[in-house]
Amino acid sequence: MERVGFVGFGEAATAFARGLGQGGVRRLVAYEPGRHGPFAAVYARRAAETGVTLVDRPDALGEMEVVVSAVTPEQAVAAARTVAPALGAGQLYVDVNSCTPGMKQEAARLLEARGVRYVDVGMAGSIKLEGHRIPIYAAGPHAQEFADRFGPYGFRIRVLGGDVGQAAAVKMIRGVVMKGMEALLVEMLLAAERAGIADVVLDSVANAYDATTFREHANMLVTTHAVHAGRRLDEVRMIRDTVRELGVEPLAIEGVARRFAEDVRHDLKTHFQNEVPAAWETVLAALRAKDAR
Amino acid sequence: MERVGFVGFGEAATAFARGLGQGGVRRLVAYEPGRHGPFAAVYARRAAETGVTLVDRPDALGEMEVVVSAVTPEQAVAAARTVAPALGAGQLYVDVNSCTPGMKQEAARLLEARGVRYVDVGMAGSIKLEGHRIPIYAAGPHAQEFADRFGPYGFRIRVLGGDVGQAAAVKMIRGVVMKGMEALLVEMLLAAERAGIADVVLDSVANAYDATTFREHANMLVTTHAVHAGRRLDEVRMIRDTVRELGVEPLAIEGVARRFAEDVRHDLKTHFQNEVPAAWETVLAALRAKDAR
Repeated sequence: MERVGFVGFGEAATAFARGLGQGGVRRLVAYEPGRHGPFAAVYARRAAETGVTLVDRPDALGEMEVVVSAVTPEQAVAAARTVAPALGAGQLYVDVNSCTPGMKQEAARLLEARGVRYVDVGMAGSIKLEGHRIPIYAAGPHAQEFADRFGPYGFRIRVLGGDVGQAAAVKMIRGVVMKGMEALLVEMLLAAERAGIADVVLDSVANAYDATTFREHANMLVTTHAVHAGRRLDEVRMIRDTVRELGVEPLAIEGVARRFAEDVRHDLKTHFQNEVPAAWETVLAALRAKDAR
Repeated sequence: MERVGFVGFGEAATAFARGLGQGGVRRLVAYEPGRHGPFAAVYARRAAETGVTLVDRPDALGEMEVVVSAVTPEQAVAAARTVAPALGAGQLYVDVNSCTPGMKQEAARLLEARGVRYVDVGMAGSIKLEGHRIPIYAAGPHAQEFADRFGPYGFRIRVLGGDVGQAAAVKMIRGVVMKGMEALLVEMLLAAERAGIADVVLDSVANAYDATTFREHANMLVTTHAVHAGRRLDEVRMIRDTVRELGVEPLAIEGVARRFAEDVRHDLKTHFQNEVPAAWETVLAALRAKDAR
């Protein structure tokens, strides 16, 4: 590739630009309306380090072969709407924003109306730690073209079958656990610190996780959930009470209690005749059947 | 030891009895009111396998050196109340129930009034997989005596400093993450299955966890939470919306959103001047200071 543009010039765009520049892409342009704001110096430094030209109007993006959108998630559709008039047939628009599948589909409609080829991308990892080698999922009819173009620069792209929105779905849905654990950890450590046992508690959890692979741990949790959710719901409520008695609002664990209560309603214990099934897929299928509406 | 009694004869008591019996404890007795109920055959089989004598009245426990209470968690105090009149000075009462610190303290008062020496125990692991070698935390003035007596039979006991309730606190508070992950996984997989991407999503999460130790992962999450909780709260809300749009009630993730919103209120981003601190302890201390009441 010779010319790649960016909408937004935050951490993700900077990492992408660095990878592309190192791989020989000559012209890199970024449309970043914040470049004259309070973080002007940060944008200027990033641009200088990566050989990117900052521009004030989206028009310059019209000359690019590929345009990468990397704004704040809630701006993903607005960004597409803003730059669409400057873009046209033959261009590839790579939307790496962490937004909902529905937002991706809306952005795609705006751009496809201009003849632009839209790619839905979800990034799964830490852009700070991994840079442009962060694991990437891509979906939509032009996902393979994106992989073919960016793969040679060291991007690690997994092309998903399926329509625009599937990559966003992976990114969003994995976030239930990824962001969920962040909240659980903070809530746990706040309570543990008040009890004077933060280090003991963290050790105890770490030992459980490090003793096995995540897939095995997950399978154990989901399969036993099918049979023991009822008994464990009592324990979850005691956990919530303990957290509250220590002076910490039991916010995340209250949501956990609601999930347990919802699943108990389906009485998988009877469904599985009190025998823990072997695989999480079996539990999911049973829950899905009970939950069908 | 020569004589050990049990209040309740479920999975935990059975595993303890097996370990003690194999180590040469001659007389094992269990008071289990459910022995004549619908699971009579299960109790009879367990008793036969482990050489335990099932009894119908708590009086037999009065002759035991040690009495282990392992009932359903919400029955922990009631069990103590029921057997207390049969017990007396010189006996050790080991309360392994997964209940709140307050419940442990209440049970302790009931038994100490009879001169019984009470030990607060929390088990951290899977009794099914590890049997009596499950990691055990013990607290209270007689915790060391418990460790001295049970350690030789292969029990793995960590004596915590502190009063009755500390072991229960470890058990309960670690449960925020242990039970929380169970709920998050089920909610994530329900949504992912509806999008047809359950396996891709689980792989993506597993890769993130298996790439590092749990302590490192936890430290990364908590330290970045301090600076990025605000931006991530937007993403958590999109995650919640995505789950809902797929037809799954976003119960656990709604609690997660509330924890993020609560922490954002403290504006640790300004406190840390937009720089991610190195250690989770720093974040906890800052949150605690902000949250002091």
